[in-house]
Order: sequence, then C-alpha cells, then structure tokens
Amino acid sequence: MTALNPVLDRLDKNLDQSLERLFELLKIKSISTDPAFSADCRKAAEWLVADLKSIGFDASVRDTPGHPMVVAHHEGPVGTPHVLFYGHYDVQPVDPLNLWHDDPFAPAVKEIESGRKVITGRGSADDKGQLMTFVEACRAWKAEHGSLPCRITILFEGEEESGSPSLKPFLDANAEELKADFALVCDTGMWDRETPAISTALRGLVGEEIVIKAANRDLHSGEFGGAAANPIRILTRILADIHDETGRVTIPGFYDGVEETPSQVLKSWEALGETAETFLGPIGLSIPSGEKGRSVLELVWARPTAEFNGINGGYTGKGFKTVIAAEASAKVSFRLVHKQDPDKIRAAFRKFVEDRLPADCSAEFHPHGGSPAIQLSYDSPFLTKAKNALSDEWPKPAVMIAMGGSIPIVGDFQTFLGMESLLVGYGLSDDRIHSPNEKYDMSSFHKGQRSWARILDALTR
Amino acid sequence: MTALNPVLDRLDKNLDQSLERLFELLKIKSISTDPAFSADCRKAAEWLVADLKSIGFDASVRDTPGHPMVVAHHEGPVGTPHVLFYGHYDVQPVDPLNLWHDDPFAPAVKEIESGRKVITGRGSADDKGQLMTFVEACRAWKAEHGSLPCRITILFEGEEESGSPSLKPFLDANAEELKADFALVCDTGMWDRETPAISTALRGLVGEEIVIKAANRDLHSGEFGGAAANPIRILTRILADIHDETGRVTIPGFYDGVEETPSQVLKSWEALGETAETFLGPIGLSIPSGEKGRSVLELVWARPTAEFNGINGGYTGKGFKTVIAAEASAKVSFRLVHKQDPDKIRAAFRKFVEDRLPADCSAEFHPHGGSPAIQLSYDSPFLTKAKNALSDEWPKPAVMIAMGGSIPIVGDFQTFLGMESLLVGYGLSDDRIHSPNEKYDMSSFHKGQRSWARILDALTR
Repeated sequence: MTALNPVLDRLDKNLDQSLERLFELLKIKSISTDPAFSADCRKAAEWLVADLKSIGFDASVRDTPGHPMVVAHHEGPVGTPHVLFYGHYDVQPVDPLNLWHDDPFAPAVKEIESGRKVITGRGSADDKGQLMTFVEACRAWKAEHGSLPCRITILFEGEEESGSPSLKPFLDANAEELKADFALVCDTGMWDRETPAISTALRGLVGEEIVIKAANRDLHSGEFGGAAANPIRILTRILADIHDETGRVTIPGFYDGVEETPSQVLKSWEALGETAETFLGPIGLSIPSGEKGRSVLELVWARPTAEFNGINGGYTGKGFKTVIAAEASAKVSFRLVHKQDPDKIRAAFRKFVEDRLPADCSAEFHPHGGSPAIQLSYDSPFLTKAKNALSDEWPKPAVMIAMGGSIPIVGDFQTFLGMESLLVGYGLSDDRIHSPNEKYDMSSFHKGQRSWARILDALTR
Repeated sequence: MTALNPVLDRLDKNLDQSLERLFELLKIKSISTDPAFSADCRKAAEWLVADLKSIGFDASVRDTPGHPMVVAHHEGPVGTPHVLFYGHYDVQPVDPLNLWHDDPFAPAVKEIESGRKVITGRGSADDKGQLMTFVEACRAWKAEHGSLPCRITILFEGEEESGSPSLKPFLDANAEELKADFALVCDTGMWDRETPAISTALRGLVGEEIVIKAANRDLHSGEFGGAAANPIRILTRILADIHDETGRVTIPGFYDGVEETPSQVLKSWEALGETAETFLGPIGLSIPSGEKGRSVLELVWARPTAEFNGINGGYTGKGFKTVIAAEASAKVSFRLVHKQDPDKIRAAFRKFVEDRLPADCSAEFHPHGGSPAIQLSYDSPFLTKAKNALSDEWPKPAVMIAMGGSIPIVGDFQTFLGMESLLVGYGLSDDRIHSPNEKYDMSSFHKGQRSWARILDALTR
C-alpha cells in the first residue's frame, strides 16, 4: 500500500482542481445525435487530447467518418498488465429544454441535501464525469510517482449516444494498437450510494425507426375522413399489437435465445431488497409494465423488451388541425438478453409491420444500431481483484449485478480485440442520465477517482 | 335580367383589380390557431373593414375575447329579403413548411395546365378567395347601380380554423343586429370544375386532445425498460382499440342517433359516378378505410368517424434516443352525422380512455370544439332560386350534395338567429385546403363573383 496512499492523499487535496477540469469538459456541447453539434464533439475530443498530453500520454484525435476518437498510450513497468480504458465524451440531446432547472451546459455544484453535493449538467454522469475519474487517478499517480502502475491505453468515443457507427471499423482497423489484456469500461453505476458494483451482464439493443406512408399529401379530415387511410391509425394499431395482455412481446421468434435466469442468481438479486415499490416509487409509478410474475430486477436485467421511444405524426402544435397526415413515424427499440440475435429481431419486427400494412400503404425502416446482450465470465482473477479494491474504498462491499442498458462496446471488444471488460462505474440511479437535470454525486466523482487508484494498484499486484 | 348583365360585364372587366385586392388579403398571415399571429388576424379584419367601407358598407371591427369579427351593413330596396353573408378571414397553420413549393403568404397566379390558371397561397380557397367573390359581386353591383339588390349584412369571423370560441357569445349578444331572412355561407365547394353544388348536409365535429401521463420524468429505457409504464404504449393501445376490424368505431354509444341514409339519396349520390378509384386515386390510395360495405361518398357524407389528427411523444428529432417518455399525447376528432350528440360523444370517449388506463397512470383531456351535424330542409324557395342561378352560370346544372366537413356556423345560425343557411361555394377537391400548396382556381374566383351576382339577382325576384 505504500505506492497507493500518497496517490489517494493527492486526489483528496486536488479535488477542486479536478472539478475545474471537469467543468471545462462539461461546458462543451458534444451532442452526437445532432449534426448541428459536430464541431462541439471535435472540441471535446481535442480538449481530452490536450489534457492527456499534459499527464504524459501519447494522445491524439483520430478521425472517423463520424465524430473522432481519442486514443492515448502510456507505458508501464515490465511484468504489469496492459489495460484499455474506455469512456465516451459525447452526450445525449437536452430536450425538453424547458424542464431543466439550469442551463444543461453550465455545470455547477449544488448541495441537494445536508452533506450531499452533486455536480449538475448534461454529461456530468454519462459519461464525462465518469471518464474523468480515471484520468484524475492517472494524473495523481503520475505526479506522485513519475510513472503509471501499469501500461495504459485510453479510448474515448464520440458516438456512444448515437449507435457508435464508426466504432467497429475503428477497432477493426486499429486492433493491434488497441488490444490489451482486458478493458476497463466506466459507463455503469453503483448499487446504491454506499455499495459499489461490478456489472456482469448487459442487455443488448436493437433500434429501429419506422415511417408509415399513406396518402401522397396531408388531407382535410372533413373531406376524406372515413374514406382515406390514416397512417397514425395504422401505426398505433401495429404498435399496440406488439405486446399481449400479459406484457409479453408477440413478434414471432422474439424469444428465441432467451434463457430462464438460474434460481440462485434470482435469489442473489432478491437479497438486494429491490421491490416494485422501491424501484418504481421514486419515478411516480407502482405497477411493473413488463411480463407478469417476474421481479422488477429480473425485468430490467434479464428479460427482453419492446419499447416505443418516440412517436410523431400529424399536427402536434398548439390548438387543433383537422388533418389526416400523409405519414406517421415511431422510434422503437428492443432490449435483448442472452443469445437473442439483433439481426433476426430486426428482420422479425419489419415483417411484423409489413404483415399489418394495408395494401395501399407502405413502410420505411431506418436502422439505429444493434448489439447482442453480454454475459461476462465470473471466474476472471481481475474481477476478484477489482471487487476487493472497490470494497476497500466504499462503506459497503462491492456486489455483482446485471444491467438493463446496453453497452455495445463490451461486445465489440470481445469480437474485434478478443478482450473481456471489467464494468465499473460510479453512477447512481437518480442521476437522471438521458433526462433533464442530469447530475453526478460529488462522492461518485471523488471516491471514483480513489477507486480507480485502488483498482490500478490491485490489478498490478 | 337588365340589372344583372352590366354587373356581370363589369366583373369580367375588373377581374385584374379584384385579383390585386385578394392578393393584399392573402399576404396577411392570419393564422388563428397560433397566438403568435394575433396581430395578423386583426390586420386582416381591418383590411376587410376598409375594403367594405370603400363599397359603401357601414363596416366595423368588433372585438371579442379572441380574434375580432368584421360586421358590415348595407341597405336594400324595400320588399327585398335581408341576407346575412358569412365567411372567415383566418387560415390554417402552414406546417410542414418544407412541402410548400412557394412562400404560403406570397400569392401568385400559375397556369397548372393549358388554359387552367390557379391562385396559390394559404387561404386562397379556404376562405379568403371565397369570401372575396361575394365582396366583388357587391362592389360591381354598387358601382353599376349605386345600390345593392337587397339588404345585406356581412359577418366575417377570425376563429373558424380554431373552433370558433367567440362565435356563439357574439351571435347571442348581437342577435338583433345580425338576424336576417336567411344566411349565405361561402365555405364549401363545387361538385367538379363544371358543376356547381349546394350542400344540404354537413357532418358535425368533436375535437379532443388527450395527454397520457406515466412516470414523473423521462426515463432511460435501459434502466427502466420492461418495468416502467411507457405512455406511448398506453396511448397506442387505447387508440388501436377505437376501431374494430371492420372499420367501425367501438366506443360504447358512439352510433346513438346515427340513421341509415334513405336509399333514394344513396342512389342520387351513386349517379354522381364517384368510386373508391376516382375518390382515392388522386391522393395515392385505393382502399376505403371506413366501415366496410359502404360507398366512399356515404363514408364521407353520411357516416361518423374517429380520426387521429396528431400524435406526439418521446424523442422525435434526428437520430435515436433510448428514452421512456413521461407523457404522450394525441389529437383525436370525431365527425358526427344526423342526431349524434357532441357532448355525449366526448364523454363516452373520455370514459373509453379512462377505462383503459393502468392504475398508476393518468390522462388529461383538452376539448377543442364540438358541433352537431346539420341537415338542411329541401323545400326552401331560396334553395331552388339559388340552384337555378348557379345552373345559369356554369356549364352543367347545379347538384345538391352533402359535406364531410363540419361548418359549425350553420348550426349556430339556427340556434342563435333562428335562420337557415344556403351553402354555396366554389372550392374544388384538389384545392389542398389545410395542406401545403393550397390553391383556388381562377375560374372559381371569377365565375364565383358572377354566380353571386346571379344569386342576389334571383333571390330578390
């Protein structure tokens, strides 16, 4: 522990400076889904390269057909492992803007209850705050010891929130450069404010946009109503068909590859004490909407879903317009588990839609990303070391959990670099990621830095 | 015919000047549904008052809690009827703006096929072009004879496209001033380009906006998908339930008051030669979407509907956002026939929605206008005179038809002023009212003016 302690002390002492650096990064509007913010995405990448260079990394902005990657290398002592750290500098859109209490790109520190401070702003938790915990741990280690405890490669992506279109080709083209012994992925959360967690399973994702087209122009509903096909009616009918009365998805073949979760795993999740009341109560709900007879943790960690993420058609402004629209659209996503095949799910969904179209209407499909679910192996020695290191830092021991969200990078690291990932992060369930008023707890930011120092130290022993 | 012919000649000679006046009116962005255009609505009212004064009307802008009315009076010879002419100066919103070939408020004359000129712009057909046909007929008669053929009151409304919230109170408060022997309402169409029409039946309308509310904030679909209620799923399920497989509306009590159309009426409509092919073909469709086993004319003229005019929820911008929205909304309207009661329909719809809500979700309802259907009496002498006058002007004799759209004013004139209405207008089915690229045929504008001169002449005999 002699190498570790001075690093931890330095992190404590330099918290304010690390916060100033994070604020600089949070102010950059790196929204990757909207082309209007392309220059901001590049600016965030350049800021990170400059910061990593200041620590001594060999860092560069690497162009892609989309937003650039940041890649950085730093040598370590012979005989230590080589780790690849992954994070993403892009953030979600900020609409609806009127629901934010403050400018999403003017970060601040607020005390939300006695003794609990949070960092506010888009990206504070997802993922800029998280990735900077690792950068700060490296900075402190380097400043204290003039070196890093192991060889470290950093990869920061700028398209995580928009389906990572450039990632696979980039990994493929740069596999030699990026391959390490294992990856550290910091885009996940704690179990609660006192209990760190390592995620060992993640749901996959298929995103799809459908556009139903009926008449060749918008129509007056007085003139044509009752005779002309209404694309909103067709769309709502199709979407309503996707779930049966028990919450099960009706698309043929949808459950191919879905396994029942082993009873001892379900029991360990039960021991976490989460109920419909504790899980849904804070968001104002009480009734699980998924398949009947399963716990909420099983529903979000181990069952697939069909969700409608957006719908749009006809007149949606103020007042009323008696129009029959020419088209209507929806954004639909599927969360996948176990061995569900993204390509087959997409094809089955498209057929499901087409089977329900009137002969004089048509549908357009636009794919938005697809990745299978991930199940990590429980027997990795790195997993045990990281679990112990986390348990040393936080009030309660670390737990192994699953995740409802997809982190496609984990599958991509397996596919392209033959590398497993350790999923460690310090987000909390009330961080409001992807929503207005995103925040990151100051304790996540501070103890997150300390946790990385401890993990790096443990991994190299 | 000695009084009439010089008026017709004058209308022919002054067509260009009448077009200039119409263009001035069309340039005013009098969109009544959007508060941002309130000043434009008032400007349109003021323009009309000035124009009517120039003819010799005693005209004034009359304030209401919403957009103002225009009221104008002109005396006529003793022994002639007193007619009230109604039109509306407000127009529909212009979105989606990108589908317009030209600025909707920069009117122009275009030749769309050899010998067929049209006036383009928002409001050209609905209803500025139409109301100006009557004003021009009055102007020419006054210029030719120094008087009008009968006593005329004019009422122009500015809220027709937004549910006419101020109309009923205004009619009620000014009944003595506005009551006439009958009304002329110019907001309808021809059967075809050669065949004028008088509308004797109109569908009513109930407009309703519903907002389904689920969680107290937007959620990440990875974190909560499968456990938290999705308001888009709830909304689409409810909307999909409204029609059965045969196109019939399933809301309990919806068909109360709906009568079967007499077979001789159906036969006279059949004689007009309209088919699914001729009616739906021009808009790119082929299959009637309403109740099976009924002709398209019966569907749009004599059957009630439930239409979804707008739907909105979640992320609808570019790209994809894996969000579960806090709420989703739809604008729904019902076209009513015969004796369907708007209040009962609205209440039945609300109950239908509430019956289908999960216990932890809620619905908000916002009413947007309601009016019963209208059936005019076939035995009015004014109807016969107008029919003959129209038959004199156009290549083919006038026909009596029904209308799928609602014109609530007709019911209001009956209720508040005890007055029947003659529905005469010169719109065509390809005018694209309420849609991008609205137009009004030059022949509608020109022969419409001549038609009114003929009708005024005939009515006073």
